[in-house]
Amino acid sequence: MKIDFLWKMNWIYYVDLFGTGIFAISGVLTAIHKRFDLIGTLIIGFVTAVGGGTIRDILIGRFPVGWLKDNNYLLVIFIGYIVAYLFKNQVLKLRKSMFLFDTIGIGIFTISGIEIALAVGLSLEYSLIMGVISACFGGVIRDVLTNEIPLLFRQEIYASACFAGGLVFFVLSQFSDFENLNIFISIFVVILIRYFSIKYSWSLNFRTK
Amino acid sequence: MKIDFLWKMNWIYYVDLFGTGIFAISGVLTAIHKRFDLIGTLIIGFVTAVGGGTIRDILIGRFPVGWLKDNNYLLVIFIGYIVAYLFKNQVLKLRKSMFLFDTIGIGIFTISGIEIALAVGLSLEYSLIMGVISACFGGVIRDVLTNEIPLLFRQEIYASACFAGGLVFFVLSQFSDFENLNIFISIFVVILIRYFSIKYSWSLNFRTK
Amino acid sequence: MKIDFLWKMNWIYYVDLFGTGIFAISGVLTAIHKRFDLIGTLIIGFVTAVGGGTIRDILIGRFPVGWLKDNNYLLVIFIGYIVAYLFKNQVLKLRKSMFLFDTIGIGIFTISGIEIALAVGLSLEYSLIMGVISACFGGVIRDVLTNEIPLLFRQEIYASACFAGGLVFFVLSQFSDFENLNIFISIFVVILIRYFSIKYSWSLNFRTK
Repeated sequence: MKIDFLWKMNWIYYVDLFGTGIFAISGVLTAIHKRFDLIGTLIIGFVTAVGGGTIRDILIGRFPVGWLKDNNYLLVIFIGYIVAYLFKNQVLKLRKSMFLFDTIGIGIFTISGIEIALAVGLSLEYSLIMGVISACFGGVIRDVLTNEIPLLFRQEIYASACFAGGLVFFVLSQFSDFENLNIFISIFVVILIRYFSIKYSWSLNFRTK
Repeated sequence: MKIDFLWKMNWIYYVDLFGTGIFAISGVLTAIHKRFDLIGTLIIGFVTAVGGGTIRDILIGRFPVGWLKDNNYLLVIFIGYIVAYLFKNQVLKLRKSMFLFDTIGIGIFTISGIEIALAVGLSLEYSLIMGVISACFGGVIRDVLTNEIPLLFRQEIYASACFAGGLVFFVLSQFSDFENLNIFISIFVVILIRYFSIKYSWSLNFRTK
Repeated sequence: MKIDFLWKMNWIYYVDLFGTGIFAISGVLTAIHKRFDLIGTLIIGFVTAVGGGTIRDILIGRFPVGWLKDNNYLLVIFIGYIVAYLFKNQVLKLRKSMFLFDTIGIGIFTISGIEIALAVGLSLEYSLIMGVISACFGGVIRDVLTNEIPLLFRQEIYASACFAGGLVFFVLSQFSDFENLNIFISIFVVILIRYFSIKYSWSLNFRTK
């Protein structure tokens, strides 16, 4: 099955773990900023890191949900948690690198989410949606739990970048069998769109700013 | 199985699709009002439309959740999304028709939710609850995501009307085999209760207004 | 299977039902305080009572979720709902007993959550997390639905007490086969930690108070 193949490509697995750790750091930092205590920040870190994939797995019926079968996810989240506390100030200074890692993370999550959805037989359209959910809904749960209106709903390039990356991945898959290369290019598209959207303040909404 | 029978009765399937579209419109309008962007309004429309059925499917273990198996749901939600933007002002003027459609929608969702729950072997009591969840919890998720206290918890006739309609459906099913007629009458009960509750400002709560 | 054994030990089953009722009362009281109507308070009571176990069951893939297979849960929640309304003022005066019952409840929920997770083959670490989720996340859903930042994230001893109780249960299980006694001691640990944490205002956070 394609999905086994994907996960056997070690670099994807490690980048996925890495993205999970980065997401955990960003969740923990948000929670520290909100003055949550040690348990609260841990929970928010956890939920930000695995929330998107969890919603995808639940919707498509993949149980137990992915991370529950692999202690490594627990481990990287815990490392992210420690890193966030130890290097709180440095992490914030490294914002640019964080942004890059985070974008690589959502790129990977989008593609692996799509592959997993295709593997259980969803349509192309819904698989694309599952990819976007995998990448973006961890942050939505984080925002709901911290009593904020989800950023995703006001900062649309985030989801649009995932969507575009997923679309590129579909098109490439039709023409090329170099899966690693296809994934690489798709993630690069996600990064480019996010980069330019922030640089030029792209926005899809009708509001006057 | 009874549920297959229900879904093969084409008019139910089409009314269900129609109700999904109406729910999407109402979700999108709420999100526009909250000044969400194009992606935010799409997500809120989607969630309002399929949220209740999704929670029901997850609780009873029906995977992938219903709409993921049928692209038509995606289609009507997208149509609802476009309609909401194109005819924003007209839609608000058509409030009375919207109210009627919306109530037909929750009536259908209640009955189909009950049938689906009975089909997987739940008790009558829980099936009734699943019916109410199918009809009402899309709105609850919408309110949670837009950082509001769910309207459902303060405007109880909505849920009570579904509950009463479901109850009528149970009683009728004991005495009559004309399933279409039973469904029709039950939905009519939902509409009547909602209509009179709004006309006479019925309320079950203890607060002085 | 161990889990069948656990549930056949009648006292656990009855304490679990009892804890569910207590959780329902606390949920209903919160919702009354928030001025929800009769349906809103019922829903919040329900969700507070079964929410934690529901999240656990969904994550590990146990469907239909536990309470849906047993009308007794519906019954105790409804009794809790009635009790909360009838004895609103007395219940608040009985705060100390409520606190004790509530703590017994989270102790039981932690241990039974752990057993259920182990039974489906989760690792020790994740089983412990599932135990804490079973005990604590009903309250998280309650807080999200009532538009509050979850108490759990600011009042960490609650989760930590469950975690410690679960840890004690693991250690005891290595050395002793008297499961009832192990459970009893573990719950006692939960109670002790909560009691002392409140008495001496323990807290794990870095904030200056």
